[in-house]
Amino acid sequence: MPEAATSLRTRVGVADLADIGRGAAVLGTGGGGDPHIGGLLAGAAMRAHGPVDLAPLEDLPDDAVVLPVAMMGAPTVMVEKLPSADQVGRAIRVLTDHLGLEVTHLACIEAGGVNSLIPFVGAAELGLPLLDADGMGRAFPELQMVLPTVYGIRGTPMSIVDEKGNSGVLDTVDNRWAERFARSVTIDMGCSAMISNYWMTGAQARRALVPGTLSLAARIGRTLTAARTSGDPAGAVADLLGGTVLFTGKVTDVARRTTTGFARGEARLDGTGTDAGSELLLEFQNEFLVAVRDGRTVSTVPDLICALDTQTGEAVRTEGLRFGHRITVLAAPCDERWHSPAGLALAGPRVFGYESDPVRATPHDVPTPTEAHP
Amino acid sequence: MPEAATSLRTRVGVADLADIGRGAAVLGTGGGGDPHIGGLLAGAAMRAHGPVDLAPLEDLPDDAVVLPVAMMGAPTVMVEKLPSADQVGRAIRVLTDHLGLEVTHLACIEAGGVNSLIPFVGAAELGLPLLDADGMGRAFPELQMVLPTVYGIRGTPMSIVDEKGNSGVLDTVDNRWAERFARSVTIDMGCSAMISNYWMTGAQARRALVPGTLSLAARIGRTLTAARTSGDPAGAVADLLGGTVLFTGKVTDVARRTTTGFARGEARLDGTGTDAGSELLLEFQNEFLVAVRDGRTVSTVPDLICALDTQTGEAVRTEGLRFGHRITVLAAPCDERWHSPAGLALAGPRVFGYESDPVRATPHDVPTPTEAHP
Repeated sequence: MPEAATSLRTRVGVADLADIGRGAAVLGTGGGGDPHIGGLLAGAAMRAHGPVDLAPLEDLPDDAVVLPVAMMGAPTVMVEKLPSADQVGRAIRVLTDHLGLEVTHLACIEAGGVNSLIPFVGAAELGLPLLDADGMGRAFPELQMVLPTVYGIRGTPMSIVDEKGNSGVLDTVDNRWAERFARSVTIDMGCSAMISNYWMTGAQARRALVPGTLSLAARIGRTLTAARTSGDPAGAVADLLGGTVLFTGKVTDVARRTTTGFARGEARLDGTGTDAGSELLLEFQNEFLVAVRDGRTVSTVPDLICALDTQTGEAVRTEGLRFGHRITVLAAPCDERWHSPAGLALAGPRVFGYESDPVRATPHDVPTPTEAHP
Repeated sequence: MPEAATSLRTRVGVADLADIGRGAAVLGTGGGGDPHIGGLLAGAAMRAHGPVDLAPLEDLPDDAVVLPVAMMGAPTVMVEKLPSADQVGRAIRVLTDHLGLEVTHLACIEAGGVNSLIPFVGAAELGLPLLDADGMGRAFPELQMVLPTVYGIRGTPMSIVDEKGNSGVLDTVDNRWAERFARSVTIDMGCSAMISNYWMTGAQARRALVPGTLSLAARIGRTLTAARTSGDPAGAVADLLGGTVLFTGKVTDVARRTTTGFARGEARLDGTGTDAGSELLLEFQNEFLVAVRDGRTVSTVPDLICALDTQTGEAVRTEGLRFGHRITVLAAPCDERWHSPAGLALAGPRVFGYESDPVRATPHDVPTPTEAHP
């Protein structure tokens, strides 16, 4: 696993998957699926077919044919209804057969415990390289919320397949319609499905994707392991991502409902340590969208809001939140293109129904004891 | 328009559409769409591209490639949201492009005011013959409820397109799954969509389809016109179909709700004339499913329950039922294959939630004044 996108070692084996999965789960900002499930699937595929070559985004030839593959659905369901082993290959095949495409590279459409590892399954099975990149630099709940949409790349034709053998190919006038139809079919498929979409050329991928995501995930994974002994894994990850620790506390309440195909809800945390006496509210739709401290919004999408187990540093996903859990919440900057007008129109806080401009989580957004009690 | 399937004259022009549409609306048993809309679309296509040749089912060569095309959705919506002119051709093209099929004949999947005429649009545009046949001999609300399902013919791959330019191709493990996904996508498309599915060979079509449906529809249409002067068009149609008049009365109540993509509800009629003092309850899901006279079930699916305007004989569709409407309800035998175990398992009364064996509407099911008041 490379230390950076420029590293020489670009072959990923079974032993590398745990770090990538744990790191990707942090970038998944509460969504993107369970790295344990992603790791089981990718590990089985690699044991059967061998390791996977990571391809740096910047070296991609213009005429490369890049195909992302991902799971779609409610994370609350994805932890109970596992994908079948052949679903990844079928999602790819249904689309490539329909289009007559010869794919040269697979890609991740988002960062997340499942969606950063699922493409390894396809890459191992098909003997294709996987791009060290993704379409968001984080996870978002809806299909059109990817940087390729900002660049005018079509999300369809897309394939969608379930574990029973059903499949569909959708071709829509824009990427929001693709989300709408695919969400309904995903719900009918049992709230989780495998999809392949946003096929693009190498030239498009170099412009529209976020470089180095899988390398970064691996570094986050290693940082978490190393920082356990120091006792502050969340702080170490915040430093690595150029972010900041927002809050440390204990979950006192979780309201969660799986509606319209999403895991929606909110969690409340009572502060501990230097945050004692304060409360943090986290609102989510598959991913954490907004963090509100004592009534003041301290971080919003499109920046990353990540919840980590305070002791182990493992990412806590929205479907895993539970009463009593001791959590450290950090905020980290997203890919800067999400703060462009087109990026905010696609995944800014107003898109999710919040009457708020985006709040960037920088250290001054976190009240120090001096500021809070002058 | 042929007098029967064996007639020599097998070319259908604009002037024939009204009779076919009015007759098909009777066979549509309250569903199948508005013949006025079907006639507008088919007439425009014929004026642009010329008349359409009807092909008798029994002459079809084994290796013919038969493709049905139809509208799917809630009739309550279809009368307000009209299909676009190019939707029929796109539904066919999306599927034939996907399959690489060379179609030789188009077909109707059901009898109904829209779904008996929509295939004329495609046949005129593509210069293909249309089979004088359909997949039910009536209309049913769900996609899998066709005789081809009884014969093991797959309802997918199927295409589904809307008027905005969106399309999909579904490929499912059985025809019930096709109904499920297509219904969800239809709802997202605005509760009406154009579909093409159940492609089959000539040999399959000869076994699985109902012969002579369009000829029969034309004869019903002409019978209605002729019988207006006699004052008993419903009786004349009942005679033509080998059925019976169940009830004559006035609509006193209609409960209608467009839910899960269907027009569902029930209508109550107070009897007039020889039926004075009795009440008829008609329950429907797009089509009339059950007729209950004074608490006794007098006719059920799969037999045809048809509501006709008492004076004009025009078919009254479930979405057009209204207070005060004077209606004559008749029952007529369906294609006998619907009464086989496989047919009843697909579209018998229990499938729609009724705890009743099928009730065939024969004259003795209609109480005479003597029986009713001994």
